[in-house]
Amino acid sequence: MIRTATPADTSTICRLIRALAEYERLSDQVVLEERTLQQHLFGPRPHAEVLLAESEGQVVGFALFFHNYSTFLGKPGIYLEDLFVLPEHRGKGHGKALLATLARLAVARGCGRLEWAVLNWNEPAIGFYRGLGAVPMDEWSVYRLTGEALRNAAEA
Amino acid sequence: MIRTATPADTSTICRLIRALAEYERLSDQVVLEERTLQQHLFGPRPHAEVLLAESEGQVVGFALFFHNYSTFLGKPGIYLEDLFVLPEHRGKGHGKALLATLARLAVARGCGRLEWAVLNWNEPAIGFYRGLGAVPMDEWSVYRLTGEALRNAAEA
Repeated sequence: MIRTATPADTSTICRLIRALAEYERLSDQVVLEERTLQQHLFGPRPHAEVLLAESEGQVVGFALFFHNYSTFLGKPGIYLEDLFVLPEHRGKGHGKALLATLARLAVARGCGRLEWAVLNWNEPAIGFYRGLGAVPMDEWSVYRLTGEALRNAAEA
Repeated sequence: MIRTATPADTSTICRLIRALAEYERLSDQVVLEERTLQQHLFGPRPHAEVLLAESEGQVVGFALFFHNYSTFLGKPGIYLEDLFVLPEHRGKGHGKALLATLARLAVARGCGRLEWAVLNWNEPAIGFYRGLGAVPMDEWSVYRLTGEALRNAAEA
């Protein structure tokens, strides 16, 4: 079962984000705080939306997403920032159900695309995404300014 | 000079988007309509914001961006969808001024990151971005569901 998250789910979402970071070997990058996450998800100007996958009354996975925009299509899109199912609940269709719900949402909202990024070594995820018909944007590289480099660029 | 775009700039922005697509050899992907772009940029729920670079009263470049969200940082970020300076006005610092303005905006809005994607063959752009201290996210690949594949995923 897939449902929309509510403010009462904030600590669950926090735990899932930390579990995802651990799986991605990126726990050192996590500086998330529960209180600010609640504001960012459920405050007056939400930065993202969350879908939860439940099994027997327990949250077993989540999808966190927001809208992007394609100037070429002249349409908004959906960008899936995080998709995660707890390891002990994999292989039961929860990830597929989350993605199908997002795809339906994208179509219903008039979006032209559903996009996300995956770590190159995450073969199970890549196989799953290719099976859905997703195409890798091999011609493109993402660049990032953060921390000191972002502050330096702001002072240039 | 960098300024924020207004509804009166819509047709100029449209022309710049088409010029960018031509430069990126992606003109076949452009199905943008001016009327919907105006709604999407300046309607009640804007999907993106635009900065314009001007020289001698003429618009010579633009940056189109929106907010994304990092769950690991627990902060919004800025995603730069399009950055373009007309070929005949390059090398005069317009691109750098657009990026510096965006970096200042990111810092002022409490964002943790400024990100964008670049085509792998666009060496002049890549050199420019690296010179600013931007780092390529080499470990990540972007996947996309669009068109028929998106509709199929929605019906799964």
